[in-house]
Amino acid sequence: MRIAVLGTGSVGRAVAARTAELGHQVTIGTRDVTAVRAGEHAHWAAQHPEVGLATLADAASGAELVVNATNGNGSLPALTTASAPNLAGKVLLDIANPLDFSAGFPPTLTVHNTDSLAERIQREFPQAKVVKSLNTMTAELMVHPRRLADGAHSVFVSGDDAEAKRIVTGLLISFGHSDVIDLGDLSTARGTEMLLPLWLRLYGRLDTADFNIKVVR
Amino acid sequence: MRIAVLGTGSVGRAVAARTAELGHQVTIGTRDVTAVRAGEHAHWAAQHPEVGLATLADAASGAELVVNATNGNGSLPALTTASAPNLAGKVLLDIANPLDFSAGFPPTLTVHNTDSLAERIQREFPQAKVVKSLNTMTAELMVHPRRLADGAHSVFVSGDDAEAKRIVTGLLISFGHSDVIDLGDLSTARGTEMLLPLWLRLYGRLDTADFNIKVVR
Repeated sequence: MRIAVLGTGSVGRAVAARTAELGHQVTIGTRDVTAVRAGEHAHWAAQHPEVGLATLADAASGAELVVNATNGNGSLPALTTASAPNLAGKVLLDIANPLDFSAGFPPTLTVHNTDSLAERIQREFPQAKVVKSLNTMTAELMVHPRRLADGAHSVFVSGDDAEAKRIVTGLLISFGHSDVIDLGDLSTARGTEMLLPLWLRLYGRLDTADFNIKVVR
Repeated sequence: MRIAVLGTGSVGRAVAARTAELGHQVTIGTRDVTAVRAGEHAHWAAQHPEVGLATLADAASGAELVVNATNGNGSLPALTTASAPNLAGKVLLDIANPLDFSAGFPPTLTVHNTDSLAERIQREFPQAKVVKSLNTMTAELMVHPRRLADGAHSVFVSGDDAEAKRIVTGLLISFGHSDVIDLGDLSTARGTEMLLPLWLRLYGRLDTADFNIKVVR
């Protein structure tokens, strides 16, 4: 697949490197290509010559599947820059969490309870097929789940489009996930986004991000 | 220990029966003893003659540890009826979740993000030692965790008083819990209360309440 990964943070890099490793044609999309190319991203890029770098719009334009790996509070502006026509009809895998760190740690959520970031993105880009997933674990475990307990933990999928969820589920399984739980429509993303306050406290308590939730049943 | 369990719902009954079985002196506290005694509770009460029934105030008055097993939206009024002096200096194990079912399923949370029901209770009853726990699983698993995966799942504890958390942790272990995670101060209860939206969606998806979260690390 031709995949655009929007965002150059740890999540964007992890997903870009892993999907490229699995044989996909991957381009990272970023706001300012020149600045990113000249900055500390250069070292990572040199180690991953197979991953392209382009503007948000150019990356999205050429892709079949777009990954939102931007900061949650910057997601809507970044997707707007990527532009609606470039997202229309495509699977939009949303990994972002609406965290507000402005008052320090732990952050609060800017959207919650009766809405979610995923739903806001879907409303703003009605022609994209938004699927929320992977937002409940640290970047490295998203793409290499077998590194923890041989993969014996869970990942959730939320979305309104069954085919888009099928495509994302296939991608998750190719990463190594073995317990993919389809929660239902996109409003179920409220549940996974609202898991973040617990995740962050566990992170503080366990002194590591290398943990995940398993739904034991 | 002398334990008061406030609430006659499934959580209250499960905790009352289990703690009585473990040798504690248990009294269920309820708003209207006469109505409860005459109603469908009579059958359960007949099967559990070792569990007493009293008013909220009388139950709390005689107890060393008080369990809030009331409906989340009725917790503050119920505890007010139990009365602050009867809670002062005591461990108050809060199991309630602030769920609002007024708009149907799934319910929303009436408190969230920057506050929690547990913290509200603590602010209202500053002399009680509030410990939030057990609110992240179904009643039967709270008290018989070994019935699922031989107990290989997690339970969380939040509270400002270390000794109160120690007492609650001991109680949890006596129930059969083996992975008790102390999240920290009472504000960490925001995280476990905000797990409910995900829990409820999983409940809908898995078609059973017999599941729980395990923190794999």
